[in-house]
Amino acid sequence: MSSGTLHVVGMGPGAPDLVTLRAARVLGSALCHAFFAKRGRAGQAATIAAPHLRAGSEPLRFDYPFTTELPPHDPAYRAAMAAFYEHAAGRIAARLEAGQDVALLCEGDPFFYGSAMHVFDHLAGRCRIEVVPGLPGMCAAWAAAGLPVAHGDDVLCVLPGTLDAVALTARLRAADAAVIMKVGGNLPKIRAALGEAGRSADAVYVERATMAEERIMRLADLPDDARPAPYFALVLVAGRRRAR
Amino acid sequence: MSSGTLHVVGMGPGAPDLVTLRAARVLGSALCHAFFAKRGRAGQAATIAAPHLRAGSEPLRFDYPFTTELPPHDPAYRAAMAAFYEHAAGRIAARLEAGQDVALLCEGDPFFYGSAMHVFDHLAGRCRIEVVPGLPGMCAAWAAAGLPVAHGDDVLCVLPGTLDAVALTARLRAADAAVIMKVGGNLPKIRAALGEAGRSADAVYVERATMAEERIMRLADLPDDARPAPYFALVLVAGRRRAR
Repeated sequence: MSSGTLHVVGMGPGAPDLVTLRAARVLGSALCHAFFAKRGRAGQAATIAAPHLRAGSEPLRFDYPFTTELPPHDPAYRAAMAAFYEHAAGRIAARLEAGQDVALLCEGDPFFYGSAMHVFDHLAGRCRIEVVPGLPGMCAAWAAAGLPVAHGDDVLCVLPGTLDAVALTARLRAADAAVIMKVGGNLPKIRAALGEAGRSADAVYVERATMAEERIMRLADLPDDARPAPYFALVLVAGRRRAR
Repeated sequence: MSSGTLHVVGMGPGAPDLVTLRAARVLGSALCHAFFAKRGRAGQAATIAAPHLRAGSEPLRFDYPFTTELPPHDPAYRAAMAAFYEHAAGRIAARLEAGQDVALLCEGDPFFYGSAMHVFDHLAGRCRIEVVPGLPGMCAAWAAAGLPVAHGDDVLCVLPGTLDAVALTARLRAADAAVIMKVGGNLPKIRAALGEAGRSADAVYVERATMAEERIMRLADLPDDARPAPYFALVLVAGRRRAR
């Protein structure tokens, strides 16, 4: 066991006041904070953390090797991302072994489709790790949309938009309530799957919930030929109980 | 439109420092706070809120008409609960119409299987409502268990333990990752469904995550003849990607 502690800290959906008191406390005493970001960008997790970080906290920044150069299912993409996370885990482990604590920042909740899980998987059992859960983006999205999503016996399915059209349609048919993540360039396929499953009328599109650029509308009202949806946009389908 | 604002405030999973900064701010200025509780109990949402509430904030307490006297599928139970929520909504609306703001406290996240949704459904469109999302109990549970739950293309299904055995088994077979809510007296059925679906080995039992009485163990290690599980216990099944 190394002597530093890794704090894996969920930063919530975007608004700086939607971090938890615990996360704010950890950030306020962090001598070193690690985060992932796209090249040339400030990084979403680091931007949310900024007002809460201890003055002079040392940044340990890891630039993603790709943005959209390769599709996520390309073996070369997978290999490069695995090497990237292994490198990041090694750099963080070196700090921990030197007795330093590190706060690893993550958008949303760390264990819910978070990048930090890859670092966690490398370091679990090798060092002390404290996970501070964070508010998932979907909770902010349905609050902002005024859309109670799951009642009583509803089954809620969280569906990555990266699923193929057949799988997506079958899942939407079976779900009472659904959240479709990772929308981005998958939007045309998602629209078609919602139509096939007979759920188009219920679908609500939410972009950048709780941030200044927040956009919320019925998916049917979102123009088809608009600029591509951001990767972190969501589509919400509320449970069927509401209509019963 | 009435002139007061209803703040529907998610209180998170239980630890007082897992409320958001926004929730703490709303509670700190709340002249009146409403909450549901079982008869004779302090109420979970009110207990989490206590250290954050404005001194002298007026409580508007609504005692649930039942605890376990009637099964939730009994029409008499449903009718009584509907009347209960209508009564609560009416009492809250009267305050709003008199120009007062009310903070309605909810465990976890208000729009994720929350009681507050029933009040929201009565009052939406009739008054100003601000929803402050909260950390769902499941996020605290998987953080406390050290269990990254959903990676990459995993489909995560949230399953009420109140589903019948056949439905529960089918849903567990189809899911990559799963969270089973509302465990309580449904535990024997849940165990059987996990066994039928071949997911028993992956199941982790989490009780009262982030609270003093937190209990986390492999479901297989939880004695069958123990006292009944609490209603708010969860069973977590991590995504299959981990093992691939």
